Amino acid sequence: MARRIEGAQRDHRWIRSVAPDIPIILDAKRTDIGNTNRGYARMAFDVLGADAITVNPYFGGEALKPFLDRADKGVIVLCRTSNPGAADFQSVMDEGNCEPLYERVAKHALEWNKNGNVALVVGATAPSELAHVRKIVGDMPILVPGIGAQGGELEATVRAGLDSTGFGMIINSSRGIIFPKGENWFKAVEREAKKLRDQINEIKSQVLAAR
Amino acid sequence: MARRIEGAQRDHRWIRSVAPDIPIILDAKRTDIGNTNRGYARMAFDVLGADAITVNPYFGGEALKPFLDRADKGVIVLCRTSNPGAADFQSVMDEGNCEPLYERVAKHALEWNKNGNVALVVGATAPSELAHVRKIVGDMPILVPGIGAQGGELEATVRAGLDSTGFGMIINSSRGIIFPKGENWFKAVEREAKKLRDQINEIKSQVLAAR
Repeated sequence: MARRIEGAQRDHRWIRSVAPDIPIILDAKRTDIGNTNRGYARMAFDVLGADAITVNPYFGGEALKPFLDRADKGVIVLCRTSNPGAADFQSVMDEGNCEPLYERVAKHALEWNKNGNVALVVGATAPSELAHVRKIVGDMPILVPGIGAQGGELEATVRAGLDSTGFGMIINSSRGIIFPKGENWFKAVEREAKKLRDQINEIKSQVLAAR
Repeated sequence: MARRIEGAQRDHRWIRSVAPDIPIILDAKRTDIGNTNRGYARMAFDVLGADAITVNPYFGGEALKPFLDRADKGVIVLCRTSNPGAADFQSVMDEGNCEPLYERVAKHALEWNKNGNVALVVGATAPSELAHVRKIVGDMPILVPGIGAQGGELEATVRAGLDSTGFGMIINSSRGIIFPKGENWFKAVEREAKKLRDQINEIKSQVLAAR
């Protein structure tokens, strides 16, 4: 076991050395029964040193307790994912409350947030769902994948997702940044990351000016 | 990366050497968007050499395609899990069909089964849900965790889960077998495993005799 995780710990030390103030999110979408989640939480937070982890809500809140109990760490719960087939189950309408499953996940996440360490994942490919979730969760942070390679629309996303203070979103582009066009990879990555940042800030300025 | 997986591959070779005919199930509860699942499928089946993997349905069927397309491998979909909080989302009643989410997962699993390589996870802690799922999926195999440390009831489980041929269940006890009471660990493990097997077969005989 020690040898298996050695490489990941080396990656972690390298990231901390070049970007000591940037939070490290382990986007691992983990979940299992509580007893197994205790091990996942230890691995993510204590062995790999991540600041936050993405988790899947399917087992319910009781199973997520080992993550939620870590008040010093972030727990980012999948709510409405960015993939084309996300609606299969996430949009099932709950008979009792007339709300889709992803909204029920958002409401539970509010209850799970006793330590102020919960956030949600809502994909940029579903801006109207993002707006619904924002209404439910107030200023809870939302991690937004799906920009770039997955085709999410940036402007609709920023408009739907900003919180009351004009912040509250972690907008993620992975393949759109790490597989850029251009001859010099390092320069091309930097260019794509800055381009996305500037686009986000430009839209954000417009939204806040209109408030 | 190569060094990280070396240990797992060594474990796999050891298991194959002592039990060459026993299928290896990677109980990893994985899922993500399709592009990431392609990597998980390769890791599980080609790098680690597993025969089957457990997967989480939250992202929907489209995302699971990289697993489902592997006709030579098993895809075991979480349906009704064995943990105390499972009902939070799995029992949400679908307004359109008046069925709980876990039954909807079972129905989708039937559609995903074009390669005959799909099975479901239904916990031994929920025997009446197990009976419902068995009715929906016919003779599809069902992996049943929750016996032993988790407190699932064996007799109710076997009665609810046997298929039309008297088979169709993979009943799993992990902590109940690998953390046995007794001084000699190897002997105690063997005793617990055989005891559970004999109990299952005894109940099965009664059920089949009464049919």
